[in-house]
Amino acid sequence: MQAEIIAVGSELLTSQRLDTNSLYLTDELNALGVEVVTKCVIGDDRSRLAEAVRRAAGSARIILITGGLGPTEDDVTRDAVAQALDRPLQFHSAISDQLEERFRQMGRKMAEVNKRQAFIIEGAEILPNDRGTAPGQWIDHSGASIVLLPGPPHELKAMFTRQCLSRLESRVPRQVIRTLVMRVAGMPESDLDQLIAPVYKKYENPVTTILAAASDIQVHLRARCDTEKEALALLAEVAGPIEGLLGDRIYSRNGDPLEVVVGQLLREAHATLSVAESCTGGLLAERITSVPGSSDYFEGGFITYTKRMKTDLLGVSEAVLAAAGAVSKETAEAMAIGARARTGSTHALAITGVAGPGTGGETVPVGTVYAGLADDNGSRVAHRQFLGDRARIRQFTTQMAMDLLRLRLLGL
Amino acid sequence: MQAEIIAVGSELLTSQRLDTNSLYLTDELNALGVEVVTKCVIGDDRSRLAEAVRRAAGSARIILITGGLGPTEDDVTRDAVAQALDRPLQFHSAISDQLEERFRQMGRKMAEVNKRQAFIIEGAEILPNDRGTAPGQWIDHSGASIVLLPGPPHELKAMFTRQCLSRLESRVPRQVIRTLVMRVAGMPESDLDQLIAPVYKKYENPVTTILAAASDIQVHLRARCDTEKEALALLAEVAGPIEGLLGDRIYSRNGDPLEVVVGQLLREAHATLSVAESCTGGLLAERITSVPGSSDYFEGGFITYTKRMKTDLLGVSEAVLAAAGAVSKETAEAMAIGARARTGSTHALAITGVAGPGTGGETVPVGTVYAGLADDNGSRVAHRQFLGDRARIRQFTTQMAMDLLRLRLLGL
Repeated sequence: MQAEIIAVGSELLTSQRLDTNSLYLTDELNALGVEVVTKCVIGDDRSRLAEAVRRAAGSARIILITGGLGPTEDDVTRDAVAQALDRPLQFHSAISDQLEERFRQMGRKMAEVNKRQAFIIEGAEILPNDRGTAPGQWIDHSGASIVLLPGPPHELKAMFTRQCLSRLESRVPRQVIRTLVMRVAGMPESDLDQLIAPVYKKYENPVTTILAAASDIQVHLRARCDTEKEALALLAEVAGPIEGLLGDRIYSRNGDPLEVVVGQLLREAHATLSVAESCTGGLLAERITSVPGSSDYFEGGFITYTKRMKTDLLGVSEAVLAAAGAVSKETAEAMAIGARARTGSTHALAITGVAGPGTGGETVPVGTVYAGLADDNGSRVAHRQFLGDRARIRQFTTQMAMDLLRLRLLGL
Repeated sequence: MQAEIIAVGSELLTSQRLDTNSLYLTDELNALGVEVVTKCVIGDDRSRLAEAVRRAAGSARIILITGGLGPTEDDVTRDAVAQALDRPLQFHSAISDQLEERFRQMGRKMAEVNKRQAFIIEGAEILPNDRGTAPGQWIDHSGASIVLLPGPPHELKAMFTRQCLSRLESRVPRQVIRTLVMRVAGMPESDLDQLIAPVYKKYENPVTTILAAASDIQVHLRARCDTEKEALALLAEVAGPIEGLLGDRIYSRNGDPLEVVVGQLLREAHATLSVAESCTGGLLAERITSVPGSSDYFEGGFITYTKRMKTDLLGVSEAVLAAAGAVSKETAEAMAIGARARTGSTHALAITGVAGPGTGGETVPVGTVYAGLADDNGSRVAHRQFLGDRARIRQFTTQMAMDLLRLRLLGL
């Protein structure tokens, strides 16, 4: 069964905003075995939206429309859908009364415009909204289900979970989609594809997609079957040979990002971590501590942006900084050793490099990075030359540093 | 003049990926006075894409199609557009030869499948791709310009800048869109709207949009005029009274984020900054150092995730930690003072709090955060109770800490 998502709002057509509701809805639909085949963003334009709804209703069985249910003139979804389906809008005084009561409870008087939110498309089921003022609407029309949902994510999620899931389940044939995600660090996408294509090309189901971003490749296998057991068996059949080919370059088999994987390895090893960062300016620590419970293994860290800080906070010797430079194997090593000594952690990661756009007086080119690791076995340093902008180089570098630790914790 | 953007790729219909190329393209089109009226994401489905292209060509003058130009079976854009426009594909041996040469230079043999990328729609202009293998295509068809661009952002941006901008300029009537973005910290969206709505409601041009995200509100004014001078005058006319109402709560009038604004204030004051972070785990330092040139004023920082680190690295006394707790006004203050003393920076920001989902043994609820500021005037602490998930609370808290510093540097 196929679905289409239409997000409504001129602000979603600016360069500042993206429609992220669709990510949540896609996850929920996929879990029901429903495939999203098209996503659209339409501005606050009644006739354009009506046309999009008409077209979608002709090609998908489920159409989720998010946003444009507010009280103002530019909230056009109710009108546009009514027009597309050629059904009248009806004023529901009970909804209007509830809205007035809601405002009264907040100690405010309801503005007249809010009465717009009490108009319901003829034949629609009303989806109550306990997090906001705009009720949702569910319309079954010529074999398609057309659902109007509020734009604010917390209102949308609550309404979808409580009102829509059970309705969808009763309309969707029992099929399941299961996805397996393998994540790989430190390998170019084309090399990876060349290696594993002979395996996955043999299968139309599961569908294989390879996604590459910032030094992180994801291999998605997506199986659609009648039962979960069949889907999982099919995934295992294809994933097995791929795992054989990629081996330890796969760092995650359940979609977990590298910071989660490294955290689990640290926890299992009863190890602790500290970090020292120069060019990544806190991003490594931020990624590691973005994981709930990371306080179990993360001790703390140092951001040593200047040479003086590297000396004062980490004890990197001025001789090393003068001879090898702040961006060097020697400095990365000394930073890691310094962070470990000062925090008492079992392991320490350090990063130094040039993230650009300028070189900040360093003699090495932009994108030169070193990651150092210190533990009771001594220290090791990885070196790379990355291309890209500041954000990309910083992201790549933290990935490289965490992978260095991962391989060490695996004893590789 | 109106444009539509179509992003092609089944991976963009998963919950893991968003089409971000459209943000860049929207900015570029708006700068030319072209409005984006619809954005769509279509999977790797030839007939569905052909239908979307046919429809778009009937309603917009510029259609930018991104992605699906690769060498594999699921790269369907060339075929789908040819089908939509009812034009044949033609093999260009010159392109094929260039591709082979490109592979040879990388020391690799071109796979046979890459020849797909040498097929060009009849009548299309070829847009060379010096960053990748897929050439772009430009087709003028029945009054619309249909442009095929590669999906990888760095390829797309280079091709758009070098090949498409001048072509678009010659086709777009001279109108300009100028946008003014005011950014406001520490104020609920509804309060802000109530305050400034009486000003902006009087104007249909500029269009006013209020966007709220993670403790950061943006007020966008978007004027469309015949000349830049008129547009800027119109923006000033509306922005003036809004600025009068919001005053110092506006931290940026050019769209700059808070980390850029704080950086400029530090630079102007010849001041330097260090940070000490507990629950934000490096995010504050990461945001501050995401700004190129931040090494001019950022000294360094400490991530003190454990009580012991707060004592060992920052000198927070065990008595304070025991009496007031790790998440307290007193600890935030002591952390800031400690960071300042250890780095010698003129200013220091410190954060302690509970980002959740667990409280990690603290007695305060999730979302309790303190930001401390130390400078030669002593110290001050801000306290808030935020709602939301871990990522949101961390983002809110860094915003609050930077705004504390901003107000101090402005002498407020």
